[in-house]
Amino acid sequence: MKLIFNKADLLHGVNTVLKAVPSKTTMTILECILIDATTNEIKFTANDMELGIETIVEGEIIEKGMIALNAKFFYSLVVKLPDNGEVELTTNDNFETLFVCENTKINIVGKSGEDFSYLPIVEKNSSFELSQFTLKELIRQTIFSIADNENNKMMTGELFEINGNELKVVSLDGHRISIRKTELAAEYEHKKVIVPGKTLNEISKILSGDAENMVSIYVTENHILFEFDHTKVVSRLIEGDYFKIDQMVSTDYATKVRVNKKEFLASIDRCTLMITGNDNKPIIINIEDGVMELKVNSENGSINDNVNIVKDGKDILIGFNPKFLLDALRVIDDEEVCIYLVNSKAPCFIRDEENKYVYLVLPVNFNTI
Amino acid sequence: MKLIFNKADLLHGVNTVLKAVPSKTTMTILECILIDATTNEIKFTANDMELGIETIVEGEIIEKGMIALNAKFFYSLVVKLPDNGEVELTTNDNFETLFVCENTKINIVGKSGEDFSYLPIVEKNSSFELSQFTLKELIRQTIFSIADNENNKMMTGELFEINGNELKVVSLDGHRISIRKTELAAEYEHKKVIVPGKTLNEISKILSGDAENMVSIYVTENHILFEFDHTKVVSRLIEGDYFKIDQMVSTDYATKVRVNKKEFLASIDRCTLMITGNDNKPIIINIEDGVMELKVNSENGSINDNVNIVKDGKDILIGFNPKFLLDALRVIDDEEVCIYLVNSKAPCFIRDEENKYVYLVLPVNFNTI
Repeated sequence: MKLIFNKADLLHGVNTVLKAVPSKTTMTILECILIDATTNEIKFTANDMELGIETIVEGEIIEKGMIALNAKFFYSLVVKLPDNGEVELTTNDNFETLFVCENTKINIVGKSGEDFSYLPIVEKNSSFELSQFTLKELIRQTIFSIADNENNKMMTGELFEINGNELKVVSLDGHRISIRKTELAAEYEHKKVIVPGKTLNEISKILSGDAENMVSIYVTENHILFEFDHTKVVSRLIEGDYFKIDQMVSTDYATKVRVNKKEFLASIDRCTLMITGNDNKPIIINIEDGVMELKVNSENGSINDNVNIVKDGKDILIGFNPKFLLDALRVIDDEEVCIYLVNSKAPCFIRDEENKYVYLVLPVNFNTI
Repeated sequence: MKLIFNKADLLHGVNTVLKAVPSKTTMTILECILIDATTNEIKFTANDMELGIETIVEGEIIEKGMIALNAKFFYSLVVKLPDNGEVELTTNDNFETLFVCENTKINIVGKSGEDFSYLPIVEKNSSFELSQFTLKELIRQTIFSIADNENNKMMTGELFEINGNELKVVSLDGHRISIRKTELAAEYEHKKVIVPGKTLNEISKILSGDAENMVSIYVTENHILFEFDHTKVVSRLIEGDYFKIDQMVSTDYATKVRVNKKEFLASIDRCTLMITGNDNKPIIINIEDGVMELKVNSENGSINDNVNIVKDGKDILIGFNPKFLLDALRVIDDEEVCIYLVNSKAPCFIRDEENKYVYLVLPVNFNTI
């Protein structure tokens, strides 16, 4: 095989598929990137059996062929090649691979591509489309509330549900729920799948975030396929019926608070000063007319912080794990947020008027702690 | 005690003395910053018994007094106070300390300052002066070649030697020597002291790097005092007679190589690709007319890299630990560097024509490895 690339194209290709290379595996072939130039295009593939990425890389095929190269070494090698250079990649029958770029020659030994597991074939029956920007935003604004342990597999993924021209993305971990909705450009048939959080994390790293470029998403019984920019990302789906979140979300409230997001965030962050180590002290929030007082008492000392608010409804005293409020507030782009509360035992909701986002956070009982 | 600060002044003061707070200690008083407002100025002090820093902080004294506060907590507290705010700090007889800043009130408990170890008094008999910029540069360009273990105490420090109007700074670790010289504005009496590397690392973090602002340096038998910007840094000196480096440095050579620094650096960096883990493979450098070839063969594969040079003298084949070359080249600001070699067993010298810097690197024997 003999191929010629621009360094920038080669680096972009390696970096794209690298996201599907497992950090730990006992199968050395999974640590590889497959370079397949047996047809008229150069295709790079990586696959950890859950998540697979394939991308077409710009380059010239002088002689067709195929090779598998250790992904991390391949990446660090390409990074260090002279910038703006033209890279010539040649392999022989013993899988010896030679890189030539300007005054640099590097020899490494690759593997036959024969053992490599290709991506599963996903039938392209039904798809929906959204922009790379929107998908990246949807992921950023929900991914923080998936569960980080595998005790409940479903909680490690996110629900993607389509109803007509609306896409709803949901994540929850038992303490909180994040819901983001977006309008699609067309009506699609109803779909409901659970996408692994890892897949979403990795895909959001390679999405350009461009509002002009689209992603096509195909769903089958066991797989989801994302197609964009000459790249395919295929992932297994998580099996099961997702939690019935409609029952958990209510629009009734006894108290509504409107607050400047940045000030509220800074105030909570300041209160976390007093919470160190494994000390699970809650923040106690006292909501009155025009002002919200945040308090923490701990072995470190005590803090009282006042934030100006506009309040409708009853006064309320309620306790929260500050992390759950911080996580939600950090991903909201609005300058002001509205918080809806019922009583000190009921979940609080942070949501906008159009219901584009809803963040539910359970309070904590601060009397017994 | 009652003091009023601007947040920015307070933060700068805490951050300055924080560099002398030990990361590990069994004496809790050493983990503190002493705020001393018993006179007409507010002085912050930290002291790990080897290195002590004292700085005068801008602020208003409403009521005189003194308190010791846990340094790390104090720092993270000040960071999180509302920006641009005015901070009121009040203490009572029980060492309870109240911070008030805009809508925030924080209560913590401090310690009596009585147990606090003040900085040793350094007699200001003889001093010399240089700019903050120059001192910071001298440290940056030599500190990388101190030894990182304590087997030989002297190697963990740097020689500061004054001869007339010349200051020479030297560090060495048994594999290499770094020498930087600078001209002082005046003639001073001969001095020769060994300053701990830790002191130099910490001081370079708080030097502004400004060429206009000066540092005054005072030396006594056991201590060195740096004075700048209302700040005093006092450090113990390392005892002993420093290595006789003049005997190790020679100006004879058989081969002189002139090379573009950036290209040489990139080429060595590329060669390190092949050196992973504990594999101590050397880079083998083959110097011929007009070109220098860098080679590494390892279990990862092989690399050959050519760099254009201007050569005077004999061809030479020599092996190096790439780290030692990289460390020196990274701190040299010149676009081109000159390398002087004798034979494959003798040290190589990277030095400029005015002898402002000399970096000696021992070669490695590449036949037996």
